[in-house]
Formats: sequence, C-alpha cells, structure tokens
Amino acid sequence: MERPAQTPVLDLSLDAAQLTAALVDVPSVSRDEKVLADAVETALRALPHLTVDRDGDTIVARTNLGRAERVVLAGHLDTVPIADNVPSRLDENGVLWGCGTSDMKSGVAVQLRVAATVPEPNRDLTFVFYEAEEIAAEHNGLKRIAEQHPDWLAGDFAVLLEPSSNQVEGGCQGTLRVLLRTAGERAHSARSWMGSNAIHAAAPILERLAAYEPRRAVIDGLEYREGLNAVRIEGGVAGNVIPDECTVTVNFRYAPDRSGEEALAHVREVFADCDIVEWTIDDHSTAALPGLSHPAAKAFIEAVGGTPMPKFGWTDVSRFSALGVPAVNYGPGNALLAHKRDEHVVAADVIRCEERLRAWLEG
Amino acid sequence: MERPAQTPVLDLSLDAAQLTAALVDVPSVSRDEKVLADAVETALRALPHLTVDRDGDTIVARTNLGRAERVVLAGHLDTVPIADNVPSRLDENGVLWGCGTSDMKSGVAVQLRVAATVPEPNRDLTFVFYEAEEIAAEHNGLKRIAEQHPDWLAGDFAVLLEPSSNQVEGGCQGTLRVLLRTAGERAHSARSWMGSNAIHAAAPILERLAAYEPRRAVIDGLEYREGLNAVRIEGGVAGNVIPDECTVTVNFRYAPDRSGEEALAHVREVFADCDIVEWTIDDHSTAALPGLSHPAAKAFIEAVGGTPMPKFGWTDVSRFSALGVPAVNYGPGNALLAHKRDEHVVAADVIRCEERLRAWLEG
Repeated sequence: MERPAQTPVLDLSLDAAQLTAALVDVPSVSRDEKVLADAVETALRALPHLTVDRDGDTIVARTNLGRAERVVLAGHLDTVPIADNVPSRLDENGVLWGCGTSDMKSGVAVQLRVAATVPEPNRDLTFVFYEAEEIAAEHNGLKRIAEQHPDWLAGDFAVLLEPSSNQVEGGCQGTLRVLLRTAGERAHSARSWMGSNAIHAAAPILERLAAYEPRRAVIDGLEYREGLNAVRIEGGVAGNVIPDECTVTVNFRYAPDRSGEEALAHVREVFADCDIVEWTIDDHSTAALPGLSHPAAKAFIEAVGGTPMPKFGWTDVSRFSALGVPAVNYGPGNALLAHKRDEHVVAADVIRCEERLRAWLEG
Repeated sequence: MERPAQTPVLDLSLDAAQLTAALVDVPSVSRDEKVLADAVETALRALPHLTVDRDGDTIVARTNLGRAERVVLAGHLDTVPIADNVPSRLDENGVLWGCGTSDMKSGVAVQLRVAATVPEPNRDLTFVFYEAEEIAAEHNGLKRIAEQHPDWLAGDFAVLLEPSSNQVEGGCQGTLRVLLRTAGERAHSARSWMGSNAIHAAAPILERLAAYEPRRAVIDGLEYREGLNAVRIEGGVAGNVIPDECTVTVNFRYAPDRSGEEALAHVREVFADCDIVEWTIDDHSTAALPGLSHPAAKAFIEAVGGTPMPKFGWTDVSRFSALGVPAVNYGPGNALLAHKRDEHVVAADVIRCEERLRAWLEG
C-alpha cells in the first residue's frame, strides 16, 4: 500500500465510530506504526490540557489536575497484517468493516475522543498508545515503557481498551510453560533389555495430567478456571531404537491468586517423583488480579454497568498489575473477530463505550 | 573409484581369506553390484558341476546330484558405502581390514570356495549370491527371488553366511511396528475445558508399555527375548493449543513361536480399551523358526560345533522361513564390526568357517 507523504490529520471532533474508520484507513501493521503514531502524537499535542511524551512509537499523554486518583486508559496502535480489508467500509446496518476495527482501533478512537473532549475529568487521566502488541513480546511498547519509564504508567487503576464487547473483563490468568524431560538409554529395539525407554518413563507425567483436577477460584466475585495441559510431546530416535529422551511441554494456566513462584511450585509438586531429569521454563507470564475492590474500579464498574467477567487469556493488563496497578479489559470490539478477514465492529457500540467512559470520568 | 574396464577374474583356488581380500577389492556398494556379480557369475559358470541362473545382479548356482537333501548357502554381494577402507589390507597379525570384510565378503568367499572345491557334496547344494541387502527391502535380491523364482530357493535347510563369529544363530525374531493414534478436540489452552487433550488420552498407552512384562520363549533349546517398546511419540499443535492428536509408535519384537497374526493380536490385546482411534501397521517382518530339530540342521550343528544362540535381530533368514525352509545365520565375520570404518575379519576364522562347512558337506 502507499505510505502517505505527510502525517495524516486526525479530526478528533468526529464521533468515535467515524474516528475508528479514519484510524483503520491509516495502516499500522506491527513494526510499521510510525505514520499512525505521528498522527496520534500531533493530535494530542494540539490539546493544551495534556502533556505528551513519546518513546519509539509509543505515546503517553496525561492531565495534571492534582486529582486524588489517576486512571490509565491504554491501547495498542498496531494490527495484524492486512487481509485485503483496508480501507474500512461502513455498511447500511451501521457495521464498520476492516482490519483493526475490533482489535483495537475502535478502542483507540474512544481513548482519543476522551482525551479530546474531557479536559477536566474527575480523575487525572493517562493515555497510553503503544506499538507492537500483536507480535513477540520483545517488541511490545507497553513492556518497554514499563521497564524504562514505569513512572509514565503510574496510576490507581487501568483500563485496557482491548475488545471485550463492552463487558468488563477483570485481571487475567497467568500462563506458565515448562518442558519436562525424561531420560533413558539407547539400545537396538531387538535387544531392548540393554537400554531403558525414556518414552515409557514419561507415563507418570501423562497419568498425572490425565488425573489432574483443575481448580476454580473466585476472586473479587469473578470465577477463574485453571488448566494444566500437555501441549506437546516429543520422543524417539528411529524406528528400531529404544529412545533415550522424551520431552513433555506442559502449559499451566492459573488464576491470579497465585504468584508466579506459587504457580511454579504447584507444577513442581504435581510432577514430584516423576523421574524428570530436566525442567526448562519455556515461557512464563504471571497473572493479574482484577482489583475490582479498588474504589476507582468500583466506580468504573458502576458507571459502565454490566456484570464483570473473568479474563482467562493472558493480556497486557498483567503489565499494569506487575507495576501494582489493578487493571481490566474493557473495549467496544469483539474479541472473537480479532485477526479475522471479516473483522468488524458495530458503530453504535463504539459510541456507547465512549459515553460510558465519559459518564465515569465526568460524573 | 575407478570401475574396472573388464570383469575381474576371481581365482577360486586362493584360500578363503585371500579370496575375501580379492572380493573386497571389487567395490560393490548397494545398487552398484554389477561388476562383482559378473565376476561371480563367470567364476561359477566355469565350474562344470553347477548349473547357474541369474536375475538382475542375483546369481543362483546348484548341484544336481539327486541327493536326499538339499541345503542352501546364501550371502549378499553388496556393502554399505566405502569409508576410505578399500582396498583391503592384511596386517602382520593375520587380520584383514576393509569394507565388507565382516559383512559379508568373507562369507561370500566361503560360499565360493565350497562351490569350487566340493563337487560331490553329500547333500545337494544351492548357492545364492544376491544384491541390495543393505538398503530398503524393496531392492533386496533375495526378496525378489523369493517372490519371482521361489523354486530357486527350494531346500531342506539354509545357512545365511552373515557375520556370526562362526557361531550358529538360530532363526530370528519378528518385528512389528504399529502407530497408535489418540484423538481430542482443539481449544485455546486458556480455556482448556472447551476441548479435550489427545496427549493426556495417550497416558494409558504409556502406562501399559511401562508395566509390560516381556516374555521369554525357549524354542529348539534357544531362549528368545521379546520386547514391546514405544520408539516414537508425537503430539502437539502450538504452545497455547490443546492438542487434538497424539501418535505413539510401538515396536514389538517377538519370538518365532508367534505367527505374524498372533503378534498383531497380542499388541491389540495389550492396548485394548486404550481409546485408540486409529491403528496403522507401519512395518511388519515376521519371525523365523530356528528349525534346529531338522535332520540337516542337526548334522550341521554337529559338524560346525559350538552352542547355537538365538538371533534377536531380524535377518533375511526369515525369507527362507517364509518359504518353509528352516534357516540359520552362520558366518566368519563379526556382526559388531559391520558398517564400521575399522571393519575387519580374522583370516584364520574365514578359513575355519570353510573347513567346518566342508566337514558337514563331505562327511
């Protein structure tokens, strides 16, 4: 696609759905967010009630009104690769189609609308627009800011405007992936008694997985559901060789009342005495507490309505949680449409999301 | 290496060790046996007491004396690829080094010596020299002859001159390889209760393998040892997906008192009720009975001496067994040296093998 020669101008007086369309029409696939980030920065710097910082293609703007509380509204600027679904298209039923309509330019549009139209909120506001959420975590702008400028993310409560169909999704579960290796001794399978079989040695691991009873945990009124699963198993040398190695990759999804250390200790306990010769932590992202008992969160839930739901998948809310900022997902898009060619959002839902946030921040 | 312009001449008046050296010096890597096969055919056709047939690079020669019994002496002409170990070299300790010295040009030399020097054996003799034993079975000359000219292999007893350190190795165990597939239903691992885990479903398979007590069977005085082993396991879609498929490859090595059907039925019984959605027979080579109770075999063992041993690995003796011809392995090389760069044979062992066969056939 053509790159615009000049920074496109974002008109923040458009309604949130129209603004979503304008954002979709500035392509911003991961690692290629600069044009959109420039446009967002320009639009924010034009607002005299905000101070603006930038690091890479991540932009942070804030009010400085000395309010008793500060809340953070965060969203990512990038999308997955375009699938012949840009520019956007509004159909006759008020549905806006295009890449990023749900995930999550509609959420970004709501952020920008609030930034532009609520100059004197009842809580100080921090707006975070970050790059590279859709690709490997090493590129994630929010991760980098959390590491290099954690003060930019300071607050009492955060809302990540990821698609949640305008339902509050509290916290997120943690995910731990561990490689469990068993060992044996190679031998020709015609003389198997000369060796020992590493695949057979994995039997107790699979037995415990098959027998595992996952826990449910109610936290701040939300019911989380854990899971402990093999996601991969590999072993074998050749069709006539007793294998000397077998690796089971286990994924533990855990409720946010466990710390990362506790989650790891639990997995170690489940597989105690399993003759595992090597444990390798392949990946670990800790859980985020919903924090719904915090006063700012309570006021938020009251203002936006509905029944909060637990978030099972891992999301960037955990990065706020790690900084001690309770966080929820709340945005106008539909998570089930994310990354799909037929991604879309209902225009009225985008406008409703803005209205609800405004009710919370102007109340 | 250079291909000789003319068919090399094999001098069958050399002793068996010298003849081994001459055979090693005519390279005959699998699929490239023609020059050596031509030389063998020419040498055999010069012997008036033999009739000679040829199919591809496989040569069959026989006496036609109307004896009460016919025995077959068989060996393959090919070798694994040369590893800088041709031409052969006889060292000062009487050890002959080179590719094929043990596996099995020393055995072929013994066959040729017996063919040339025992014109009136007490049993009719059939000599089989075949190609492509060291590669995939589809190319195997003995397999082809068994299918297309089974009458060429007719006999009461067969000796395969594969390396056995001049020890009789009786029969061979069968080998059956089966793929056992379990199934599940994919789901995101953050919501594992929406799917079902095919790797967990393989737990009972591994449990039964781990608990399996392999049988020992004494047949014709030889103790065979069976084995049932996983040789491969594979399952998994991605690090965050509940896998919908897992495959365990099981290798059953079984004693020659089981038929192929019985071996398969046994494996099915072991894994009964294991929720296996698909069985695939990957490979099956049936066992060969040692046939040591046959009069020709008894006379053979008496003549060559030593205590017969069971053969655990699968060998081409099974092809004779499938034709109703009991067969044993008996040859001068050392199986542990086969396919090695430092392959060698003790010259005196080659000569001793010839002497023993002569004692059996001239007695």
